[in-house]
Amino acid sequence: MPATPPPGPDTSDDQGDVPGRLMSGEMAEQPAMLRRILDRGAPRIREVAAEIAARKPRFVLLTARGTSDNAALYAKYLLEIRLGLPCGLASMSTTTAYGAKPDLRDVLVVTVSQSGGSPDLVASTQAARDAGAVTLAVTNNPDSALAAVSEYHIDILAGPEKALPATKTYTASLLSLYLFVEGLAGADGTEAASVLPDLAGAILGRRAEVKALAARYRFAERMVITSRGYGYPTAKEAALKLMETSYIPALSYSGADLLHGPLAMVDNISPVIAVVTDGRGGEALQPVLDRLRGRGADLFVVGPKAQVEAASAGFALPTSGVPEELQPILEILPLQMLAYEVTIARGQDPDSPRALAKVTETR
Amino acid sequence: MPATPPPGPDTSDDQGDVPGRLMSGEMAEQPAMLRRILDRGAPRIREVAAEIAARKPRFVLLTARGTSDNAALYAKYLLEIRLGLPCGLASMSTTTAYGAKPDLRDVLVVTVSQSGGSPDLVASTQAARDAGAVTLAVTNNPDSALAAVSEYHIDILAGPEKALPATKTYTASLLSLYLFVEGLAGADGTEAASVLPDLAGAILGRRAEVKALAARYRFAERMVITSRGYGYPTAKEAALKLMETSYIPALSYSGADLLHGPLAMVDNISPVIAVVTDGRGGEALQPVLDRLRGRGADLFVVGPKAQVEAASAGFALPTSGVPEELQPILEILPLQMLAYEVTIARGQDPDSPRALAKVTETR
Repeated sequence: MPATPPPGPDTSDDQGDVPGRLMSGEMAEQPAMLRRILDRGAPRIREVAAEIAARKPRFVLLTARGTSDNAALYAKYLLEIRLGLPCGLASMSTTTAYGAKPDLRDVLVVTVSQSGGSPDLVASTQAARDAGAVTLAVTNNPDSALAAVSEYHIDILAGPEKALPATKTYTASLLSLYLFVEGLAGADGTEAASVLPDLAGAILGRRAEVKALAARYRFAERMVITSRGYGYPTAKEAALKLMETSYIPALSYSGADLLHGPLAMVDNISPVIAVVTDGRGGEALQPVLDRLRGRGADLFVVGPKAQVEAASAGFALPTSGVPEELQPILEILPLQMLAYEVTIARGQDPDSPRALAKVTETR
Repeated sequence: MPATPPPGPDTSDDQGDVPGRLMSGEMAEQPAMLRRILDRGAPRIREVAAEIAARKPRFVLLTARGTSDNAALYAKYLLEIRLGLPCGLASMSTTTAYGAKPDLRDVLVVTVSQSGGSPDLVASTQAARDAGAVTLAVTNNPDSALAAVSEYHIDILAGPEKALPATKTYTASLLSLYLFVEGLAGADGTEAASVLPDLAGAILGRRAEVKALAARYRFAERMVITSRGYGYPTAKEAALKLMETSYIPALSYSGADLLHGPLAMVDNISPVIAVVTDGRGGEALQPVLDRLRGRGADLFVVGPKAQVEAASAGFALPTSGVPEELQPILEILPLQMLAYEVTIARGQDPDSPRALAKVTETR
């Protein structure tokens, strides 16, 4: 554990009700939290993965909502690419509203939920277990109803999250899911991931840079966020974060889907954020970036330095020595900060978006 | 075949380059096309379904992009609810960009594509077949590369589609997929579906009503479209149609996901369109409708008369005697018309959205 305080603005208690105090503090906790997962969480994750690997699942269904759904999508890429396991994201209403009775033998059902408290997630996980699935809950609350109904549980060790926009539970879910998939493959991912805490700290220390960039979006009426491959969950999560804090309608598309329709909506008054991973996902996005530039789009890149330099603006990520599949844990950090800074610039409080509750009681 | 011309404006050739002429004509073809699928397409679909049922697939992966992806999502609901078959929507880049080698024994891979020509769909379907999957292509072109690489093929019989926004190929895909899933269940869906052509004709004849409603969105800067269950693919397709024709940023969410974040963005200046199926999907959406009304949202409902009367505005659908799972084939029609009329009202041409090509060459 670092002895120095985490980077970012002062979040000590005497600040009282400063807007965004909670979100800011929780973003700043991420480097220490990533280290905690690597040090204290990884052994248990490896055990769970070994037990589940022995059950030889042939298909994986991922169940989640909101931010956790974006973490689940990240896991889908890992499972398909690293393990060749076909995956699906569950359409929960098929069981909760329509009472579908799927045959889930040989199926691993992974439910991701920060709180572990949404009744529909608990019900659909219970139904999956009854239908023969191996069930795994990935939550920030080992005492939750979801952890109780699942055969296996991974605690993402993020500590209490009080701000309504989820930040540290997202990166904690990603790292936990990465270690879990590595464990299923019989590998230990901690060494490759050991670079993350320091790099995350360095990125979070660049808040002044993000604050200056946020001025670009102070008056934006809409935004398009795109990526491909491992970066696609980052694009979706960034869009959700921007919408729930700043209320800017932010549309996320895989680069390929963007060319199938929504591109018509992009022009030089619609800012585009592209998440460019350093690897095959970024390479696959290149033709989309070229098309966007050809249309005069205002392009903001989060990615390697060379990509940022070719764009209208951007945030250069330290990707050297970071495997592509781990880059999403870093990519989201400047975008969390961007959502925060744009919201502050608009005079709103990122901690308390109107209309939202921390545990969403969908059924 | 009906002897009378299809409803809708005159689409005879002497109109030349009237904006939206192609889209308008193709929307109007839908009743006759649905009848054609029931009369001439159904027997072959039943044969394909019987052959695939004999292979006893245990999981289904659906692969598509754009409008076809929304049709694939509809099939996912059918397969899970009607057959209890766990399904996933493929993340194509895992094979095309990352070269994943999944184990697809016992897996049915269904690829939906109007043109059957997108190189990435062809490549991922070929890879799936090589990996042991049973492959089925659902296209509007039996001579396409996609049909050629797939073991089985269903021709959706929509006839040439020339407008860039897909309309008739969407409803043709839905009905073909419905008949296919009924066939997998050993049933013949043509009787339940036999009401669709006349009901579709009646809906398409109400264009004046939609034109009046379109005035509401003439100056809209964004829009949220929501639904649950079988209506959710309709919400996604309506959003895509609105975006690619009118360029209005239209965000679609399942009602449950809307409560997990994006609700913060909805207020009395963001119009909401709710697709309310008459059945369990509509019942599951009810709490979301109540929340939206409580927030003063401008709510436009496509659904049963009683739901429309409780909303700010809407389009009442004839749902009596139409099984919930067939309602999506009708629900999308007023929303296609809405996209068309809003686009005309904005002085744009729905036939030729800027930046788009009919066959999207993503790889």
